[in-house]
Amino acid sequence: MLDKIINSAITKEGAGARLEDDNNGGTLVLLAVIKEKLPDGQNLPLPPVILAELGKDPQNPTLCFYGHVDVQPAKKDDGWKTDPYTLTEINGNLYGRGATDNKGPVLAWINAVETFRALKLAMPVNFKFVIEGMEEAGSLGLEKLLEEEKQCFFADVDYIVISDNLWLSNSKPALTYGTRGNACFFVEVESGDKDLHSGTFGGIIHEPMMDLIALLDSLVDPTGHIRIPGIYDSVAALTEEERKLYESIEFDLEEHKNNSGVKKFLYDTKEEILLHLWRYPSLSIHGIEGAFHEPGTKTVIPAKVIGKFSIRQVPHMDLSVVKRQVVEYLEDVFSKRNSPNKLKVSMPLGAEPWVADINDPLYIAARRAVKTVFREDPDFIRDGSTIPIARMFQTIMQKSVIMLPIGAADDGEHSQNEKISRYNYIEGTKVFAAFFLEISKLHGQLQETSNTKTDN
Amino acid sequence: MLDKIINSAITKEGAGARLEDDNNGGTLVLLAVIKEKLPDGQNLPLPPVILAELGKDPQNPTLCFYGHVDVQPAKKDDGWKTDPYTLTEINGNLYGRGATDNKGPVLAWINAVETFRALKLAMPVNFKFVIEGMEEAGSLGLEKLLEEEKQCFFADVDYIVISDNLWLSNSKPALTYGTRGNACFFVEVESGDKDLHSGTFGGIIHEPMMDLIALLDSLVDPTGHIRIPGIYDSVAALTEEERKLYESIEFDLEEHKNNSGVKKFLYDTKEEILLHLWRYPSLSIHGIEGAFHEPGTKTVIPAKVIGKFSIRQVPHMDLSVVKRQVVEYLEDVFSKRNSPNKLKVSMPLGAEPWVADINDPLYIAARRAVKTVFREDPDFIRDGSTIPIARMFQTIMQKSVIMLPIGAADDGEHSQNEKISRYNYIEGTKVFAAFFLEISKLHGQLQETSNTKTDN
Repeated sequence: MLDKIINSAITKEGAGARLEDDNNGGTLVLLAVIKEKLPDGQNLPLPPVILAELGKDPQNPTLCFYGHVDVQPAKKDDGWKTDPYTLTEINGNLYGRGATDNKGPVLAWINAVETFRALKLAMPVNFKFVIEGMEEAGSLGLEKLLEEEKQCFFADVDYIVISDNLWLSNSKPALTYGTRGNACFFVEVESGDKDLHSGTFGGIIHEPMMDLIALLDSLVDPTGHIRIPGIYDSVAALTEEERKLYESIEFDLEEHKNNSGVKKFLYDTKEEILLHLWRYPSLSIHGIEGAFHEPGTKTVIPAKVIGKFSIRQVPHMDLSVVKRQVVEYLEDVFSKRNSPNKLKVSMPLGAEPWVADINDPLYIAARRAVKTVFREDPDFIRDGSTIPIARMFQTIMQKSVIMLPIGAADDGEHSQNEKISRYNYIEGTKVFAAFFLEISKLHGQLQETSNTKTDN
Repeated sequence: MLDKIINSAITKEGAGARLEDDNNGGTLVLLAVIKEKLPDGQNLPLPPVILAELGKDPQNPTLCFYGHVDVQPAKKDDGWKTDPYTLTEINGNLYGRGATDNKGPVLAWINAVETFRALKLAMPVNFKFVIEGMEEAGSLGLEKLLEEEKQCFFADVDYIVISDNLWLSNSKPALTYGTRGNACFFVEVESGDKDLHSGTFGGIIHEPMMDLIALLDSLVDPTGHIRIPGIYDSVAALTEEERKLYESIEFDLEEHKNNSGVKKFLYDTKEEILLHLWRYPSLSIHGIEGAFHEPGTKTVIPAKVIGKFSIRQVPHMDLSVVKRQVVEYLEDVFSKRNSPNKLKVSMPLGAEPWVADINDPLYIAARRAVKTVFREDPDFIRDGSTIPIARMFQTIMQKSVIMLPIGAADDGEHSQNEKISRYNYIEGTKVFAAFFLEISKLHGQLQETSNTKTDN
């Protein structure tokens, strides 16, 4: 049935091919087809985004669930013990590409919905589904679709749930309430239009590489502290409530170190490590374009080199302020070198950080659901990397977002032998079902309070 | 005839296929075939080196002339105005690949020899020829051949002449008496065996790139001064005699700057520029292996990066001392960073500088020959780059070497539209012929003095 709809939709022109399917208990399925303009002018249709809704009870809150069904590439030869595209259970683990990222959680959510229908229980919430197929390629087209549909398909959404990340631990559940942003910088230093011979010009020119190396070296001190003046000014102060969250978090520091391959971290305690991964900015230098990068030797003085670094920013750092601080600082460092070369600093990519209020009904409901199923409180965690989806939904819909993972830290997303455990899959499904009830109850109470207030 | 000899020689096994050709006025031609061992164990015969001799008069000095007949690649499509492999004269210039580097000078030398025979003049010198076909590929096999033949074919050589470089000016002749060496360094910093994600590890690890950038940044200050302690200690002091050589040198500073594309050199005067190109060491940073080097962005923290730089050393810097100074300095800088990463500094390549005594009979004779032909004294110049041949001949044969160029600065060796002017070709031939007479006379006088001394 779905195949037929998709095939029908992708043959149509333009975005938002709308196909109603009223025979299926009030479900509406839309296939949104976004076209991507290629450099040659051709319009390429992207894999369609499935938009579906179930239930329209005005008494119920409407949950928007985001997931994706595209996966990272996988071949048996890469080192898989089983065929990556045949789900295979071994010792309680379900192995297969997409098992945890993100087909497993998508199916668990659908299973939770089905359970209510199978038991003929009243559905406590209304649903909107957004299931895309371009997540691993940067969710191309999704932002445009959300913008286009926010007043239509998404008009009555109250809460957004994303289940596309992992717990921090192999065994303890977690709720994710923040991700860092990512501001990528290019530092270009140019002396002219041709590379020079180090015999013929070495010793008499200001080499662009020397300037660039000095600029890059000015960014961070050996303790990991970013030297750019003002860069820490807007970093949210650590509150006592927040600091306490870190104490109970289950995080195997030793295992994380082993995973990294490094001998020693910059900090010694679990708390310091997590604080610096999640809620303080970091700066990494990725490489240099235009210089000699091959094995062996070459006696070249490159004429134009581009250093690449990025800053993982955190609330409440403002991208445009960060950009200005970086540019001004590097221009200042450069000016002190009296170099005749040309400097150009740019920020080709900038993604904002995201942070949620852990006292939002979404988090209260999810915490209760986890407690009901797992008999323990979840860890409240963040992610040091950048997941633009949460921020995108929050900004466009102006509704609160929760990241509610059900996979364990060792699931191996993007790796060989990706898995989700049967335990996590089933208990995760239960968490979702319990969450429907909890958020419905909380939402009702909030409405009541709000109505009472209005009555007064 | 030569074709037959070459074909015959390269079918033989081993080096030094020896073929005498006594019908040609006492000329001996040897085809030395060196085999190069490939990584797969196969022995590949290299293009043969032509060793030839003419004359064995014990009263005459024996001049060993080095040249090469291999060339840089050239295609009409590269931007040649004429077919690169058909010598074409336009406005007094002879265009063609190898015209100046190095077929022209080799033929000029042979023409000079032929002139004496054509005029039935007594030959004032004996000749040894070394004409190779691997110069543009690093003279592979040549050093081995020189070592093998130094007691045989080269046993009676008195002087070595190389004519494989250019004047510094377009119009003023020059004699070259020095080249800088080249010590290439690898600085490897490693944190572990896998690259890391800057979201998952940025801010908590000592990034190898940060260490490497700091190490590279410690090498040279913004004025071009090398910061490695002791590195200038062995640099030969500038003598008054040497300083004076620089005054009269014809060198178009503005043109050299235009050729480089840079806006400004580190020094303002011709003398300072040439001193820093020729007789002071320089350090250039070439690039980094193992880091991100492509266009675009990538959020990687590279686990193992190798910085590449080189030092052009000068007399009397010792390679092993330079290596020790570099290693000790970088280890010291690194130790102050308290990084848990692994540092490895190595010198994969080291070529010594070369400098000749400009009061050697070779230079006195050449200066006189130039004065006779061009009616002006030559400039005494050096080369900032590394030409291992001169040093190689000097070290192995323990005889003095002169680099006696006949091509002009604008000949475009290795470039499109390489040329030698008809004027330079003919006057250069005359210089060679005059040089035979001058060196013969000087050598005779020296022998006489030496004999007189022995008699006393």
